[in-house]
Amino acid sequence: MTRQELIYQIKKKKSFLCIGLDTDIRKIPTHLLDLEDPVFEFNKQIIDATKDLCVAYKPNIAFYESLGVSGWNSLQKTLDYIPNDIFTIADAKRGDIGNTSSMYAKAFFEDLSFDSVTVAPYMGKDSVEPFLAFKNKHTILLALTSNTGASDFQIKEIDGKEVYKQVLETSKGWENSKNLMYVVGATKASYLADIRKIIPESFLLVPGVGAQGGNLQEVCNYGMTDQIGLLINSSRGILYASKQADFAEAAAEKASELQARMAEVLDSNSLI
Amino acid sequence: MTRQELIYQIKKKKSFLCIGLDTDIRKIPTHLLDLEDPVFEFNKQIIDATKDLCVAYKPNIAFYESLGVSGWNSLQKTLDYIPNDIFTIADAKRGDIGNTSSMYAKAFFEDLSFDSVTVAPYMGKDSVEPFLAFKNKHTILLALTSNTGASDFQIKEIDGKEVYKQVLETSKGWENSKNLMYVVGATKASYLADIRKIIPESFLLVPGVGAQGGNLQEVCNYGMTDQIGLLINSSRGILYASKQADFAEAAAEKASELQARMAEVLDSNSLI
Repeated sequence: MTRQELIYQIKKKKSFLCIGLDTDIRKIPTHLLDLEDPVFEFNKQIIDATKDLCVAYKPNIAFYESLGVSGWNSLQKTLDYIPNDIFTIADAKRGDIGNTSSMYAKAFFEDLSFDSVTVAPYMGKDSVEPFLAFKNKHTILLALTSNTGASDFQIKEIDGKEVYKQVLETSKGWENSKNLMYVVGATKASYLADIRKIIPESFLLVPGVGAQGGNLQEVCNYGMTDQIGLLINSSRGILYASKQADFAEAAAEKASELQARMAEVLDSNSLI
Repeated sequence: MTRQELIYQIKKKKSFLCIGLDTDIRKIPTHLLDLEDPVFEFNKQIIDATKDLCVAYKPNIAFYESLGVSGWNSLQKTLDYIPNDIFTIADAKRGDIGNTSSMYAKAFFEDLSFDSVTVAPYMGKDSVEPFLAFKNKHTILLALTSNTGASDFQIKEIDGKEVYKQVLETSKGWENSKNLMYVVGATKASYLADIRKIIPESFLLVPGVGAQGGNLQEVCNYGMTDQIGLLINSSRGILYASKQADFAEAAAEKASELQARMAEVLDSNSLI
């Protein structure tokens, strides 16, 4: 999916919601466990219930990988089930030397047909550029994450500038950097003003609204652009809104609340 | 496998060689492609030919993941086939928020029974500690990698000290840090003297001897300890020494050359 198609979908659905498919077999309703593929069945019902309310799904690859071959099958079936007009994000946080990053890029972009993948910046340019080489695919680079460990390295300063800002600036010079998006945690919404000075137009994937405590309105105040530029993720708050048979309905309700707030923001910013 | 068992194996085999199983279906001898599982068959023959010459195997997870379900099957079968007295490393370079890192740790340590996994440090303490929590399992943290992109962030200075040194120092304070090893690229062997001042005893996994140009003797001069403290990896130089039917024999020859040089180093340092 191109950036323009993503923006079109956001305006059409009045939503920049991304739903994280952190599907944990230990947390899904027990009545699903008797089915052949409980993880896929859970995702299928979540997708059916929320596909008109969100513009992106973000399977957290760890949750599938931890189930081995059957998890990989569930992931493939989930990807095949997601409608084509929804942006897909492999939350994989990969990154390795060039030929290995190429392998990961192939796995996520070609074999699984994801639109995007999250990538860690620690190994630098030649670990990220193999992902950027794919046309109409998007590489979502970790910049400032929402966990407490972000303080260990990301906000330390190199030459008077925090590491995450060095990541933003340096990555702008990489080949096909137009294919970059960035992960910026919502627990530090006020940092978004500074971030927008460095990358005024890039899309930001913002986790941490909800379970991790970020504030939707504040994130939009600091991070939204005239091309929207935001995907806001919620995972557990939606997936596990109910642990009973009505889980999909409860998920839709939570997603609908977020979508309504997003529609208001888009409207008040004259973006729809 | 415990650290003591690893040291015992190194002394017994007079080798601290790790063989990287970067098994690329496009590079393996064509006569294998007619078999049911060419990747496993290649690994099996490599393992049969080299298991007495090395102390560790390091499957590069990207190469398996890029083949989807069949790759995952090949990886599982490879792990099952590696003898129990050989240390196994999942070269996965994972790292995510706590509950997600736990999932990755479970996938590699429990389900696949790897002895160790490589982890990226960018997200800090709470992204790494879930790996460290596993008893008798080892977390190999990226410090200074051997690719050119290492210069983008790793060797930049925070408070007058390079990022990779900050990673070494900070990680020493994490819970169960005794389970840490570190990736240190051999292309910068002279840096090892400084690294040993910070982590005098930790095992280092050193890629880049061979294809990436590092020098074995130099790495040992700077990095070896009285508990050895080094695993030196070679991947392509061994796996693809021949692309014909004699590939396993050619791999054994290359591995044997490295092992002989390692035996000399161990002997000259009075470690065997």
